[in-house]
Amino acid sequence: MDVLPPNVIKLIDEFSKLPTIGPKTAERLSYYLLKSDLNESLGAALINLKDGLRKCELCLTFTDDTLCKICRNQSRDRAQIAIVSQSLDIVAIEKTGLYKGTYHVLGGLISPVDGFGPAELSIEPLFERIRRDKPEEIILALNPTVEGETTALYLVKKMTDLPVKVTRLAHGLPIGGDLEYADQMTLGRALSNRQIFS
Amino acid sequence: MDVLPPNVIKLIDEFSKLPTIGPKTAERLSYYLLKSDLNESLGAALINLKDGLRKCELCLTFTDDTLCKICRNQSRDRAQIAIVSQSLDIVAIEKTGLYKGTYHVLGGLISPVDGFGPAELSIEPLFERIRRDKPEEIILALNPTVEGETTALYLVKKMTDLPVKVTRLAHGLPIGGDLEYADQMTLGRALSNRQIFS
Repeated sequence: MDVLPPNVIKLIDEFSKLPTIGPKTAERLSYYLLKSDLNESLGAALINLKDGLRKCELCLTFTDDTLCKICRNQSRDRAQIAIVSQSLDIVAIEKTGLYKGTYHVLGGLISPVDGFGPAELSIEPLFERIRRDKPEEIILALNPTVEGETTALYLVKKMTDLPVKVTRLAHGLPIGGDLEYADQMTLGRALSNRQIFS
Repeated sequence: MDVLPPNVIKLIDEFSKLPTIGPKTAERLSYYLLKSDLNESLGAALINLKDGLRKCELCLTFTDDTLCKICRNQSRDRAQIAIVSQSLDIVAIEKTGLYKGTYHVLGGLISPVDGFGPAELSIEPLFERIRRDKPEEIILALNPTVEGETTALYLVKKMTDLPVKVTRLAHGLPIGGDLEYADQMTLGRALSNRQIFS
């Protein structure tokens, strides 16, 4: 490594701090950027990333305005709030084109192992919103993991007194998946949640 | 995607232009950077990447001085020149700790399919250097691919008149590899280049 110029070492070092980018990839990306003109535009995009960026006052996703595009959109159904752990999950749900309600970003999931408890999540603003806007349905759109389940159970317990229907995303076989390779838990859920063939 | 703020879309777009980074990874990296403070330091490293950077006058690798660290190093053996396609290959060879000679960076490999011929490579400076410095050995350290072989053959042909020994990296079974899974070509090379057990 010490045969490289300091600028290049610095960039490899910075890239290596990112998730999913190992030292080899960091090296390759840095050399690719040395030979291209992309370094300046990528650098500018990184430095400008947070300019004017804030959290939507309603759903807490990242936005460049007081409210995000979805919360501003009058045609979205405010009677439905999908609770997600992070803004990226909104992007994933929006890509399905099947959801017309609104969102609430928790900012993480409860993870006792990592010392990440309910106090770290934006739960209070969610309950304020529920009490104020009185939505009909809360959809728990959390990861099907231990952390997601823990968070879902915690929220459901806190919502028992509220006059709101609480639903969750369905578990089952992923489309295109192979029954033979499905794990025991998923196949079990798919079986117990089996649906009328229509 | 149109639910995202323009700054974030811009960064995802810039990341997606890099090799090995698909749209999903670009999204994840951008969101990771939104939540961390790394965006500014990575951005600065990118923008400063080429500041003061030039090519070593002897071996043509990237450096921040007239000569690179290896060419400046008086303890390196100038009688040996390893020819590599790109600067990253120097890093790989240096990591072995087994080479004490110098390098020459070609800047690519001959690839007729991509319309990349010998004229695009820094072959002329290499021959000037050989005629001037009269090294004893040229080590062809090129990729074991069609492009690497084509380039090696081209160089060997041009060097026949020069009083220099031309060698190449050995082909054979990779260490830790499984004979059973070795491809036919590699196993064939390993067999025909078999060595006395010592």
